[in-house]
Amino acid sequence: MNRQYNNFIGCEAEYDEADIVFFGAPYDGTTSNKPGARFAGRAVRAESVGIETYSPYLQRDLEDIKVFDGGELELPFGAPEPVLDLIYSYTKKIISDDKIPVMLGGEHLVTLGAVRALAEKYPDLVIVHFDAHTDLRDEYLGQKLSHACVMRRCHDLVGDSRIISYGVRSGTREEFEWAKEHIYLQKEVAEDEFMDLMSAPVYITIDLDVLDPSVFPGTGTPEAGGLDYKELLDSVAAVCAISKVVGCDLVELSPPYDPSGISTALTCKLLRELFLCLNGGVSDDESA
Amino acid sequence: MNRQYNNFIGCEAEYDEADIVFFGAPYDGTTSNKPGARFAGRAVRAESVGIETYSPYLQRDLEDIKVFDGGELELPFGAPEPVLDLIYSYTKKIISDDKIPVMLGGEHLVTLGAVRALAEKYPDLVIVHFDAHTDLRDEYLGQKLSHACVMRRCHDLVGDSRIISYGVRSGTREEFEWAKEHIYLQKEVAEDEFMDLMSAPVYITIDLDVLDPSVFPGTGTPEAGGLDYKELLDSVAAVCAISKVVGCDLVELSPPYDPSGISTALTCKLLRELFLCLNGGVSDDESA
Amino acid sequence: MNRQYNNFIGCEAEYDEADIVFFGAPYDGTTSNKPGARFAGRAVRAESVGIETYSPYLQRDLEDIKVFDGGELELPFGAPEPVLDLIYSYTKKIISDDKIPVMLGGEHLVTLGAVRALAEKYPDLVIVHFDAHTDLRDEYLGQKLSHACVMRRCHDLVGDSRIISYGVRSGTREEFEWAKEHIYLQKEVAEDEFMDLMSAPVYITIDLDVLDPSVFPGTGTPEAGGLDYKELLDSVAAVCAISKVVGCDLVELSPPYDPSGISTALTCKLLRELFLCLNGGVSDDESA
Amino acid sequence: MNRQYNNFIGCEAEYDEADIVFFGAPYDGTTSNKPGARFAGRAVRAESVGIETYSPYLQRDLEDIKVFDGGELELPFGAPEPVLDLIYSYTKKIISDDKIPVMLGGEHLVTLGAVRALAEKYPDLVIVHFDAHTDLRDEYLGQKLSHACVMRRCHDLVGDSRIISYGVRSGTREEFEWAKEHIYLQKEVAEDEFMDLMSAPVYITIDLDVLDPSVFPGTGTPEAGGLDYKELLDSVAAVCAISKVVGCDLVELSPPYDPSGISTALTCKLLRELFLCLNGGVSDDESA
Amino acid sequence: MNRQYNNFIGCEAEYDEADIVFFGAPYDGTTSNKPGARFAGRAVRAESVGIETYSPYLQRDLEDIKVFDGGELELPFGAPEPVLDLIYSYTKKIISDDKIPVMLGGEHLVTLGAVRALAEKYPDLVIVHFDAHTDLRDEYLGQKLSHACVMRRCHDLVGDSRIISYGVRSGTREEFEWAKEHIYLQKEVAEDEFMDLMSAPVYITIDLDVLDPSVFPGTGTPEAGGLDYKELLDSVAAVCAISKVVGCDLVELSPPYDPSGISTALTCKLLRELFLCLNGGVSDDESA
Amino acid sequence: MNRQYNNFIGCEAEYDEADIVFFGAPYDGTTSNKPGARFAGRAVRAESVGIETYSPYLQRDLEDIKVFDGGELELPFGAPEPVLDLIYSYTKKIISDDKIPVMLGGEHLVTLGAVRALAEKYPDLVIVHFDAHTDLRDEYLGQKLSHACVMRRCHDLVGDSRIISYGVRSGTREEFEWAKEHIYLQKEVAEDEFMDLMSAPVYITIDLDVLDPSVFPGTGTPEAGGLDYKELLDSVAAVCAISKVVGCDLVELSPPYDPSGISTALTCKLLRELFLCLNGGVSDDESA
Repeated sequence: MNRQYNNFIGCEAEYDEADIVFFGAPYDGTTSNKPGARFAGRAVRAESVGIETYSPYLQRDLEDIKVFDGGELELPFGAPEPVLDLIYSYTKKIISDDKIPVMLGGEHLVTLGAVRALAEKYPDLVIVHFDAHTDLRDEYLGQKLSHACVMRRCHDLVGDSRIISYGVRSGTREEFEWAKEHIYLQKEVAEDEFMDLMSAPVYITIDLDVLDPSVFPGTGTPEAGGLDYKELLDSVAAVCAISKVVGCDLVELSPPYDPSGISTALTCKLLRELFLCLNGGVSDDESA
Repeated sequence: MNRQYNNFIGCEAEYDEADIVFFGAPYDGTTSNKPGARFAGRAVRAESVGIETYSPYLQRDLEDIKVFDGGELELPFGAPEPVLDLIYSYTKKIISDDKIPVMLGGEHLVTLGAVRALAEKYPDLVIVHFDAHTDLRDEYLGQKLSHACVMRRCHDLVGDSRIISYGVRSGTREEFEWAKEHIYLQKEVAEDEFMDLMSAPVYITIDLDVLDPSVFPGTGTPEAGGLDYKELLDSVAAVCAISKVVGCDLVELSPPYDPSGISTALTCKLLRELFLCLNGGVSDDESA
Repeated sequence: MNRQYNNFIGCEAEYDEADIVFFGAPYDGTTSNKPGARFAGRAVRAESVGIETYSPYLQRDLEDIKVFDGGELELPFGAPEPVLDLIYSYTKKIISDDKIPVMLGGEHLVTLGAVRALAEKYPDLVIVHFDAHTDLRDEYLGQKLSHACVMRRCHDLVGDSRIISYGVRSGTREEFEWAKEHIYLQKEVAEDEFMDLMSAPVYITIDLDVLDPSVFPGTGTPEAGGLDYKELLDSVAAVCAISKVVGCDLVELSPPYDPSGISTALTCKLLRELFLCLNGGVSDDESA
Repeated sequence: MNRQYNNFIGCEAEYDEADIVFFGAPYDGTTSNKPGARFAGRAVRAESVGIETYSPYLQRDLEDIKVFDGGELELPFGAPEPVLDLIYSYTKKIISDDKIPVMLGGEHLVTLGAVRALAEKYPDLVIVHFDAHTDLRDEYLGQKLSHACVMRRCHDLVGDSRIISYGVRSGTREEFEWAKEHIYLQKEVAEDEFMDLMSAPVYITIDLDVLDPSVFPGTGTPEAGGLDYKELLDSVAAVCAISKVVGCDLVELSPPYDPSGISTALTCKLLRELFLCLNGGVSDDESA
Repeated sequence: MNRQYNNFIGCEAEYDEADIVFFGAPYDGTTSNKPGARFAGRAVRAESVGIETYSPYLQRDLEDIKVFDGGELELPFGAPEPVLDLIYSYTKKIISDDKIPVMLGGEHLVTLGAVRALAEKYPDLVIVHFDAHTDLRDEYLGQKLSHACVMRRCHDLVGDSRIISYGVRSGTREEFEWAKEHIYLQKEVAEDEFMDLMSAPVYITIDLDVLDPSVFPGTGTPEAGGLDYKELLDSVAAVCAISKVVGCDLVELSPPYDPSGISTALTCKLLRELFLCLNGGVSDDESA
Repeated sequence: MNRQYNNFIGCEAEYDEADIVFFGAPYDGTTSNKPGARFAGRAVRAESVGIETYSPYLQRDLEDIKVFDGGELELPFGAPEPVLDLIYSYTKKIISDDKIPVMLGGEHLVTLGAVRALAEKYPDLVIVHFDAHTDLRDEYLGQKLSHACVMRRCHDLVGDSRIISYGVRSGTREEFEWAKEHIYLQKEVAEDEFMDLMSAPVYITIDLDVLDPSVFPGTGTPEAGGLDYKELLDSVAAVCAISKVVGCDLVELSPPYDPSGISTALTCKLLRELFLCLNGGVSDDESA
C-alpha cells in the first residue's frame, strides 16, 4: 500500500528472473579533492521518481525488461582493498549467474573491483572508458590503489591495446605519453581496429565527469570542455548496439556538489537508457 | 547482504509483531509559505543511520522494542480531502490492530486525518499540542482545511477544554481570544486540571517549529523565541510517563530549509526517544 | 524618491494605457515532485534589475512599449479549481480590454485557466507548446487537474490538431501514442500545415524545462537533452513574427532549485524579449 | 485585487498619516569581510508575509498603529559620503515632520547618516548601541568612514558618555581601552546614571550580530557568545518603555549568509515588535 | 614539509626570475547587483589543486615556465580611487621589470588600474575585451568610476578604434550607438584591420560573464546566450599567438554564486592556459 | 606588500621562536557518515581574518605570544595507518623541541597520531575529551582504526582512569557500559580525583560536535542537546588554568555542512582563546 524509496524506478524484478543487476558501491575513500560520491546511490534512487520508465529515444520501456535493484553494498571506510574485495565478490556472483552487472559508484576506483571479476571470466575483455581524466598514474601520493590510478590498474589486468578512452582532457604529461604506448585515446583508433575491438566482450566505465560541467556540475573535479549529454548517450548506445556488453558502471556523481539536482537527474535518465540499451540496442527513430 | 535505505534505523519489526507503526504522510499542499515538508520522510529515513539505536537519556534501545516502518503513504497532490481520507484509513487500521501510530508529516494538516480516526475510537481524547503557532483560524484564504486551521478542526472533533497547546508564540488576536475560551494555553492549566486531562487517552502532535529556529531551522515558518531540544524532550517524556498515549505525530520538518542537516538529525533523535518513551517511560538516570 | 521592488523592470505603464498585461500565478499545488514554482514571480521581479530595458537582439527597448505589471494574483492553496477560476477571470478581463496577457507561473496547470478564457474568445485558437514533457495524461494520481495533464485538458478545449509541441523528450508510451493522433510533435508538422496553423490566433505556453538543464537548472523536473537559449528565443520570435499571438505564459521556474540564479536571470531576459516581440516582431539585425 | 511584494506586512499607512517611517538603506560598500547586507530590505519585505501583524508578547497589532513603508533608498555604490548624505536628508525630512525613522541597513555605517540628522535636532542625543563589535576604531584600512569606525564617528557627534554599548565581545585592545574613557560598556553603567541617560532623547542602533550566531547566522561577521532573541527583545522593549526613542535602526542582516532564512524571519519579527514598542511600550502580560 | 594554500598551482617562481606575475585585486565596491568577486582569489588558489600543471590542449606544462604568484593586493573598501592607485602602482612595477602582469579581479573596474599603467608605457595599446556587457556608460548612478563604465574609462586612455569587444550582448541603446563610433564590436572589424591592430601591444581583459551562464554561473550578472569554454579559449589563444600581449586580467568570478564550483574550476583551467599561451602560443595538436 | 591566505591570523612566529605550533591534519578517510572535515584547515585560515587578535575574554592578544602556523600536513588518502604515522612524526618533532602542538582535524581519528607521540613522552598522560559521542567501540565495520574507535585506541595507550569525557550524549549501550569501567564520564569524577588527574600532563581533544548543533551545525554527525560556546570555553580555560597542557586538538569541523559559516567562525575564535590560554591562563575579568 505504501511507498518506499528503496528501488530505482522500474527495477522491480527479483534477482532470479533479472537479466541486469543494478547495485551501488558507495565508496569515496581515495578521493583526493572533494568527497561525496558515496551519496550517489541514495540520491539516484530517491530522484528516479522524477523520470518516466519509457524512453522516447529508444522507444522501449523499463517495464519490458527485467532489472533487479540490489541496493547499496555495505562497504567499510578507510583502506580500499577490502572494498574492492566486496565489489569483486558481488560482481563475480552476478556474472556467474549470467546476468549483467551495472554498478553505480562511488569514486572511480570501484571499477577495479568489477573489472577484476570480469577480466577473470573474459580474458579478452575490452574496456570502453569515458572520462575527463587519464587516471593512468602508476601511483598517487604513494598509493597504487587510487581513483587516479584506476585505469592503470585495469591495464594491469587486460593488457595493451584493450582500453579505449573517450573525452579525456586532463592528465600529466607522463600519463599522456604512457597512453600513446598502451591504450587508445579516442581519435587514435582506426575504424577497423575499433570494429575488431568491439567483437570482444566489452565493459563500459563512465566517469561522469566526462560530461561538460555545464550539464553535469555535480562531481568532485569538474573539467571544462566536455561532452554534452547527447554525445555521451549516442556513444554509449552505439557501443551497446555493435558489441556484447558484459558489464558497466557509472561513477563520480557527487550529490553535495549538485545543489540544483541536474546531475542526479541526468544520471537517472542515463541509467534508464543504459538498462534499455543493454537489452535491445538503439531504435531507428530519432523523434526524441 | 546489501543495504537499502528504506527503514528508519532500528525499526525492523514486521507489522504483525509491532507495538508501534511508524509512517510518513508526505503532503504539504496547503502550505501557504514555503513548501518542502513532503520531503521529510525521505530525509529522515536516510539520515537515521547517523544516530545510534541506544538512548543514554532513557537507557533503552530500539532493539528492545518492536516498531514497524510502514513507509510513506502514497498521497495525491492538490486538494486535501482525499489525503485526509487516506491518512484516516491507515490510522484506523493501525489502532484497530491495537498498535500506536506515529506519523511523520508533511504539513500540520495531516494531523487531522489521524485525529479523526482516534477521536472516533476514543471519544474522550485529549490532544497535547506543541507548536509555535495557534493554528486556530476557522478558515484561511477561504479554506476550512488548511494547516492554519488544523487545531480548530481538531477542536471540532474533541470539543472544549480537550486541547493543551505548548510553545505558542504567534497567531492573530482573534485566535488568542478564541483560545482562551476553548483550549488551554500552557500556563493556564492548573496542576490538578492537567493531571485530570492526563487520565484520558492522549494524542501528541508536535509541530516542530515549536523549537527555537536556532536548534530547528528547517521549517517553513521559523518563529524566534522557541523551546530548546531538552525542554521539548522533557515535556514529551513527561506526558508519556503519566498518561496513556494512543498516537502521535511530528510535522513541518522541511528539508529544503535545513542546509546543514541539523533539523533532520534532531528529528531522527526525537523520533527514537519518542518510540522508546511510548514503550516504557522515562528513566531516573540523568546521565545524558 | 525611493525604490520599491514591485514591478518588473521597464513595466511602468498604467493598466488603461497598456498593450500587454504581465501578471503572476503563484500556484504549485499539483506539483508532484519538487515544489517552488510559486516563488517565481517574487524572484523574477527582484532580479529584473540585473537586465537592461534595451534588447540588442531585437533593437527595441521596453521604454518604447506599454506593459502593465499586474503583480501576483492572490491564489488559495490546496485544490486547483478555485485557482483556475481566478486565473480565468483575470485573463478574461485582460482580453476583453483588448490587451495581451503574459502570465508567469507557477506550475504548468495555471495555463489551463488562461486557455479557458482565450479559447472562449477565439474558438480557432492554436497553442504553441514548448516543454520537455508531453503533459498529456488523462489523469495523474487520480486527478484530472494536474500539471501532468494540462495539455490534455487544453486539447479538451481546442480539439485535434490545434496544439504543436516543441522540445518534448519525456512521457509515457501511451502519451506519445495518443499524441500522434491528436496533436503535432515538432517534426511531424509540414511547412504548409504550419503556416496554416499560424494564420489562427496563437497562444504560446513555455514550460521552461524545455530548455536544457545546463542553461536552466532551476526547475522541479530537469530533463537532459533540451534546447539552448538561442534556439528557444529564435522559435518564439519566429512565431510572434508570423502569427497573431493573443496570449502567452512562462511556467515552472522554481527559484529554490536555482542557487546560482542563472535560471531566474534567463527568465527575466526571455520575458523582455517576449514583451518586445509581442509588440513588433524580429529585427533583421543579428548583431547580438 | 493582486498582491505586490513592496511593503512590509501591516505597514499600509500613507506618509502623511504615519507616526513611524520605515525605510531601507541598502549599502554595504565598506564591508571588509562578507558583503550582502544590501539585500536585507528586499528579503525582509518578501518574508514579512510569514509573520502575523499581531504580537502576543506586546498584545498589540500593527493594524492599531500607523507605519509608512518608504521603500529602499536609491543609493550609489562605492564611496560612502554621498550615501550618508542621502540617508541624512531622508532622515531629516522624517524628523522634521515629527515622525520616527526606523532604518533597515545595509551595513552599520549607514547609522551615521541618520545620527547626523538626529544629533542636529537633539543636541543631547543618547545612543543605545547593541553590537558584537566595538566599532570604535578611529580609522580602518586608512578610511575614517567605515563600518568598523561607525560608533567612533557617532561619538564625534554626541560626545563623551552619551553612548551605551550592549553585547560587545570583539574589538582591539585599543578600542576597549578607548571605550573605558568615552562610552559606557553595559556593565559599567550604574542604575542612576542609566536612568539619567534615559531621560534624554534616545537613538537605538541594533547591529544584529549582537545576537548569538545560533539564532542569527545571517550576518557577515558572526561572533560566538551573543544574546538570544528574548534578551535582545526585552532590552529594546525596556528602553522604549522608559525613554523617548526618536529613531532607530537594524543593520547587518546579510541574506546570502542565511540559507535557512531564520535570520530574516527573526528580523521581521523584531521589526514588528519595535514598531509596536515605539507606539506604546511593554505590556504586563508575559503570556508569549 | 607541509602544504600551504597560498600559491596558484605550479606558480612557484620567485619574483626576480619570473616572466609572468600573477596577482589578485579583491575589490568589488562598485558592483551594483551581487557582490562577491572579492573572494575570487581565495577560491581560485584553493581550488587550483584540482587541475594538473600540464595542458594537453597546448602540450605544455606550468613547470616549463616561470610564474610568480604575488598574492592578493591589500585594498581598502569603499571609494575606488585609492584602489585603482594601488593596482596602478603594482602593475607599473611589474611592467617596469619587463614582466607580464596577469590580474585576477575582483570586479571589472580593477582593469582600469592596470590599463592606466600599461597605456602609459605603451601609448599605442590595443585592448581586446571579452564581456557580456558593453560597460561603456559615461557614468552610472552618478559615478564615473564604476564597473559599468570601465571600458569607457579605458577608451579615455587609449582613444578611438583601439578596443575590440567580443561576446557583448547587453547594454543600453546609447551604449551600442556610442560603440559604433568609438570601438569595434566583434563582427565589425575587418580581417586586415584586425591584423593591423594585432601588431600593437595588446592588453586582454576577460570579464568572465562573456561565457554562457551554463558553463559559468558564478558571476553577479549572468547573461544568457554567451560563449562556451572552447570558443573563449580558442579566441584568447589566437590573440596570444599573433600579437604581443603585454598584460591581461580575468574579472567577475563571484564564488558565492558558484555553489557547485564549476566556475571556479573553469577559471583555474583558463588561467593555466593563459599562462602557457603567454609563454609560447598554440600548438598544432588538437588532441585535447 | 600583498596578502596571502596561508597563516591563521596572528600566527606569524617562525618555528624556532614559537611556543606553540599550529598545524592541520586534513584527513577524513574513516568518516562513515558525511565527509568534509578535510577542508577545515583551508576554511579556518581563510576565515580567521574575520576575528581580532585580541581577546576581551582573556584580555590578552595573539601579538603577545609566539605561535607558528605549520600549515596543513600532506596526507595520503585511503588507509589510515600512513596518515597516523605522519601525524605522529610531526607531533614528536614539535614536542621534542619543547613546543606545544595544536592540531586542527580532519576527523577524530587524527587524535591518535598525536596521542601516540605524547603518551610516549609522558607515560602518565591524562586526556580531557570533549565529544558528543563515546568513540569507544573496539572496532567499527571491521576496522580498529576508525573515528568511532579513537578514544578506545587512546585508552590502549594511556590505560584505565586516564580519560575524562565531557558532553557525551550518544553511543551504544556497550560503549556506555565499558566506559563505566575504564574512563570517567563527566559527572562521575569527584573533585579530588579531578584535581589529582590535573596534576599530570594533559592532552585536550575537542570533537567540536560536543557543541550544540545550533551553535555548531558544521559537522558530519550533529547531535542535539550539546554545550553552548561559553560552557565549552570556560571548561577548556579552566583545564588550562589548573594543569600543564602539553598538546591539544580540535576536530570534526566540516565546512561543507556550514553554509552560513558560523561553525568556522566559532572555530577561529576558539582557537584564538586556546592559544592564549595555553600561554597564560584565564583572567579575572569577566567583562566579555
